[in-house]
Amino acid sequence: MVTDIVRADREIVDALAAFGSATVHEALGRIGYAGAGIRPIQHDVAISGSAITVQVAPGDNLMVHAAIEQSQEGDVIVVVPTTDSPFGFIGELMATQMQVRGVRGYVTSGGVRDTAELRRMGFAVWTAHVAAQGAVKDTAGSVNVPVVLGGVIVNPGDIVVADDDGVTIVPRARAAEALAASQSRAQREARNRARYEAGEISMDINQLRGVLDDLGVVYVPQEEYERGGR
Amino acid sequence: MVTDIVRADREIVDALAAFGSATVHEALGRIGYAGAGIRPIQHDVAISGSAITVQVAPGDNLMVHAAIEQSQEGDVIVVVPTTDSPFGFIGELMATQMQVRGVRGYVTSGGVRDTAELRRMGFAVWTAHVAAQGAVKDTAGSVNVPVVLGGVIVNPGDIVVADDDGVTIVPRARAAEALAASQSRAQREARNRARYEAGEISMDINQLRGVLDDLGVVYVPQEEYERGGR
Amino acid sequence: MVTDIVRADREIVDALAAFGSATVHEALGRIGYAGAGIRPIQHDVAISGSAITVQVAPGDNLMVHAAIEQSQEGDVIVVVPTTDSPFGFIGELMATQMQVRGVRGYVTSGGVRDTAELRRMGFAVWTAHVAAQGAVKDTAGSVNVPVVLGGVIVNPGDIVVADDDGVTIVPRARAAEALAASQSRAQREARNRARYEAGEISMDINQLRGVLDDLGVVYVPQEEYERGGR
Amino acid sequence: MVTDIVRADREIVDALAAFGSATVHEALGRIGYAGAGIRPIQHDVAISGSAITVQVAPGDNLMVHAAIEQSQEGDVIVVVPTTDSPFGFIGELMATQMQVRGVRGYVTSGGVRDTAELRRMGFAVWTAHVAAQGAVKDTAGSVNVPVVLGGVIVNPGDIVVADDDGVTIVPRARAAEALAASQSRAQREARNRARYEAGEISMDINQLRGVLDDLGVVYVPQEEYERGGR
Amino acid sequence: MVTDIVRADREIVDALAAFGSATVHEALGRIGYAGAGIRPIQHDVAISGSAITVQVAPGDNLMVHAAIEQSQEGDVIVVVPTTDSPFGFIGELMATQMQVRGVRGYVTSGGVRDTAELRRMGFAVWTAHVAAQGAVKDTAGSVNVPVVLGGVIVNPGDIVVADDDGVTIVPRARAAEALAASQSRAQREARNRARYEAGEISMDINQLRGVLDDLGVVYVPQEEYERGGR
Amino acid sequence: MVTDIVRADREIVDALAAFGSATVHEALGRIGYAGAGIRPIQHDVAISGSAITVQVAPGDNLMVHAAIEQSQEGDVIVVVPTTDSPFGFIGELMATQMQVRGVRGYVTSGGVRDTAELRRMGFAVWTAHVAAQGAVKDTAGSVNVPVVLGGVIVNPGDIVVADDDGVTIVPRARAAEALAASQSRAQREARNRARYEAGEISMDINQLRGVLDDLGVVYVPQEEYERGGR
Repeated sequence: MVTDIVRADREIVDALAAFGSATVHEALGRIGYAGAGIRPIQHDVAISGSAITVQVAPGDNLMVHAAIEQSQEGDVIVVVPTTDSPFGFIGELMATQMQVRGVRGYVTSGGVRDTAELRRMGFAVWTAHVAAQGAVKDTAGSVNVPVVLGGVIVNPGDIVVADDDGVTIVPRARAAEALAASQSRAQREARNRARYEAGEISMDINQLRGVLDDLGVVYVPQEEYERGGR
Repeated sequence: MVTDIVRADREIVDALAAFGSATVHEALGRIGYAGAGIRPIQHDVAISGSAITVQVAPGDNLMVHAAIEQSQEGDVIVVVPTTDSPFGFIGELMATQMQVRGVRGYVTSGGVRDTAELRRMGFAVWTAHVAAQGAVKDTAGSVNVPVVLGGVIVNPGDIVVADDDGVTIVPRARAAEALAASQSRAQREARNRARYEAGEISMDINQLRGVLDDLGVVYVPQEEYERGGR
Repeated sequence: MVTDIVRADREIVDALAAFGSATVHEALGRIGYAGAGIRPIQHDVAISGSAITVQVAPGDNLMVHAAIEQSQEGDVIVVVPTTDSPFGFIGELMATQMQVRGVRGYVTSGGVRDTAELRRMGFAVWTAHVAAQGAVKDTAGSVNVPVVLGGVIVNPGDIVVADDDGVTIVPRARAAEALAASQSRAQREARNRARYEAGEISMDINQLRGVLDDLGVVYVPQEEYERGGR
Repeated sequence: MVTDIVRADREIVDALAAFGSATVHEALGRIGYAGAGIRPIQHDVAISGSAITVQVAPGDNLMVHAAIEQSQEGDVIVVVPTTDSPFGFIGELMATQMQVRGVRGYVTSGGVRDTAELRRMGFAVWTAHVAAQGAVKDTAGSVNVPVVLGGVIVNPGDIVVADDDGVTIVPRARAAEALAASQSRAQREARNRARYEAGEISMDINQLRGVLDDLGVVYVPQEEYERGGR
Repeated sequence: MVTDIVRADREIVDALAAFGSATVHEALGRIGYAGAGIRPIQHDVAISGSAITVQVAPGDNLMVHAAIEQSQEGDVIVVVPTTDSPFGFIGELMATQMQVRGVRGYVTSGGVRDTAELRRMGFAVWTAHVAAQGAVKDTAGSVNVPVVLGGVIVNPGDIVVADDDGVTIVPRARAAEALAASQSRAQREARNRARYEAGEISMDINQLRGVLDDLGVVYVPQEEYERGGR
Repeated sequence: MVTDIVRADREIVDALAAFGSATVHEALGRIGYAGAGIRPIQHDVAISGSAITVQVAPGDNLMVHAAIEQSQEGDVIVVVPTTDSPFGFIGELMATQMQVRGVRGYVTSGGVRDTAELRRMGFAVWTAHVAAQGAVKDTAGSVNVPVVLGGVIVNPGDIVVADDDGVTIVPRARAAEALAASQSRAQREARNRARYEAGEISMDINQLRGVLDDLGVVYVPQEEYERGGR
């Protein structure tokens, strides 16, 4: 149990939610995305917050209880079992505790249950599994140590950015850089969007004709292509 | 084809829906949950009913047709192929027959199709797969024999409890016990929920500090933890 | 890059959407369904259109940019990576380009991102993965060559029929036949639906009692079955 | 912990090994096969024995230790975790205890480790996973209760038949019937093998031409088939 | 059932085995490999032959019996079920018929059984599954039509090249080209192997330093890298 | 590209091979095991060495070429693609280069090819996939940065211990501790093995009766258990 963890600047943490997991992941240089296996249980919710990390045994939620006590307003609790674990590690009652403390969401490579109630409460969850299978409280684990979520290292105090596309982790030390890069990326995308809406295409805007040329791609009408056999 | 099956007391069967798959599974002593692989095609629907069990060949729905005739108001049809089978064993037409007879839902480790129509009709389905791939009607199987759904044994007349978290099976002989235990569990949870909403945490309510202590868990501030190396 | 592809008759292409992936797949003789692994990101949307096919390297969307230029009103872009690829090959910006050109949807055995925005835009997508992981633009591929989507061969100009149940591919040469067979199938289903709603069952309507008989299926009351041991 | 279980007649149990998992599964009427996911760690070993069944928590081998004490010469220990569990529940040391007592093999939907040593010792294992990940001894489970192995119900005292093709479970009450049916099946196969070796084919021996005919299968030379389009 | 199929020139077919699935796949321009999911049941066997293709229903081997009659010396039988199918579609008896006719091997995205006997007989098999689960003979399918094996189109008469790395399919029309390209590739590899054995590395032989340079890869000693933080 | 990495003391690195992945993983406190998905292509080979880490794009082996130049006698090359990648990233030619330099093995969550040749050469490989599918050399990656292999963090210079059970990673800073703990664990196991061979069981040696008692496990003869119903 590691206590008194350092978090990133709160304004930066809060500002990242608006950009979303895909843009922030791109802004970091295409790293930090926790994979297609960790999915939201709700639609159209985007959050960001400081990670409280939890390493648990498969099907054992003892350390999640302990982690709640370490959490505060603006945090996201990140729970990683030692193996793939389709268990309902938390449900409505544990989410209630988190929500009362101002925790913004729950992210796990394990599982959750009571998903109908969680959506009703407005408590945001990203998870590898939805499962009613109950957890026990028998085995020690760790809180606020580095964990590996979907192939990405999460340190306590790192920033979790989560939305419909999944979860991206921003290393605490790179928070300001991630925000700046996300902003400039979003501005460029806004400019391009306007051009695309006006009918331009990325082949021109991104100068991709030259790339195709360099790679030796040639254009052949279908009729000619089929005459030539394959 | 086994006919004239015994069902559990109807009032008990009906009462279980309100508690949901997770609570009933816990009330049974953490057994009976059919796994994270069998998911609802709709949100926010909870049912309970008596199981009509069907063993089918992969991609063959002949015995499901036969099972419909054995079903009555208050039943749930449970269909298990002999191997993983992403086929649309039933769609709108078969669901119409079930709905007319008062069947409450359809549960399968195979697959279904016409999901948009099924949701529109309000016919509840839990399934391992959504797939348009069509079934044939060529091979014999069994109706109302024991089947294995997601690792759980289902006997005809057992009670199926299904909601957003998945499916729990209650053995017919344990119906009354499951209801009583679910009720007392729900009351305890209601009391705890009120305390959690008031800011208490499970570390205190469940006396988990002693458990952590016994397991040798120690608390270390982050600064000290990092100084100490890993 | 194959250009100037031949498409099927536009009225036939458009008419197929109303029947849906399951009915059209049955009408073709139970072929053409691209499998349970390719799922819609939205509910209650059904489309049909002419396939622009794209073969890409895993995690590389260069050829999708090139394919957009080949697409026109009424097309569906079909993107197949050479291996399973949970990447966000396209997002909102590329979908905007497609939507402006009148492309009706995007179908892929790879992945997409910006799913919340795509739903908001009303741009229809069927995909094996939702993932924020970014794509690169480094490797050559092919546009409008035969591809294999979920085990089904898709040629450029084939017709894509997609809805809540998934994606069915109609070979261009069989378009008129598929439409006629879908229509007659839908009429037969409408007649049967009325009879099912009136309480008849498929055991009678489809004459299945004889089939069960021929297969040697016997009916035994549960009491007798259990007395007889197993 | 259920003790003093009833086993099947020893001569019958021993005799089944020679027929192998495929023949015995066919002889039972194509039931009892525990699936393609449970594989041997060695080649060319075939065993049969009486099942000692063990239900364990994921990653916890406490009850396997307890099960060893219940085992005797001629048994096979069958271990089923409550969820998919790639842990090394047993290794060389536990296998040594089993081997000393005359246990013939170990079958699990969990995992094992020390596979090189196990092969060296000549202790036969069928398993869903090979994994070094260590197990704990913290959670209660059950010994000699019904378990579900790869979708098949195993009762204590049932007969386990395992070889290169996997594992088949014979219900204790059907042991004699399974042996008789296996013997007659093996004799028929021996006769057919001789005919096949002499150049006859199953199309003739099994009278399959009529079956194809009834199903409407027609023969078309390739040249004609391709002229006719598809 | 398509009969009298055209095969490629026998000398070319036979010569391809020596190059193996990886070299031939490269020689074709990195296409034709049927994927990592189709594995040999034996070690150190490499074959090539003309494809007899078979489309079967899941768990139904009727058309494999029919395909045997169409096969001749030098063929490889390729069997594709319509969905993933862990069944033992063939075993020793069917392999005996194939072996007597001179069939060189059996390739399937379904499953096989009797693997110990098949290895003993020296009959080569590549398969997605090993499973004892028995097949039935109830449903029609097709012989010698195009099938899709692990995402690759196989036409009857195409050439199957299979070894420890899996299976590559060579379109019949490209047989001579594939052989020539394989030979020249093998010669180049032999030259390079000698240089590698003498201590040269591919960074030099393949001029990769320039590629890294162009991509902006820089070299940093570890001490400096860690001082700079990440 | 990080160069001039620090490795652990060579004598310690070399000594760890004898204990194997399971014992070393236990000695570290049950951490560091890279999972059941990474399997050896050979039997009965155990190695240990210093990690050269490589992060690659899916299906792109450019950085593996670069990593070879950074490797030296006693190293193990660890290659991690950014997503699951069943490609043959390396084969015989690249293994030849590694073997000439004294590299002891290759570990990857991607894939390899030429497995028959690699076994023949005696070059040891642990891999998630065997696949002939060819890799390209187009995309930049990183050498000697931290990577995540099967959920475990690997830093350059960490120690790789691999055998039939899979791969365990020892952090460089814990090398001496891991060796000492492995030695004492091995000694204890040797003592216990002798007692097990003499017929003692772990229930007694590990004092597990008390544990079962504390957990409330009771012993019931089967006859009584079945009389009591379930």
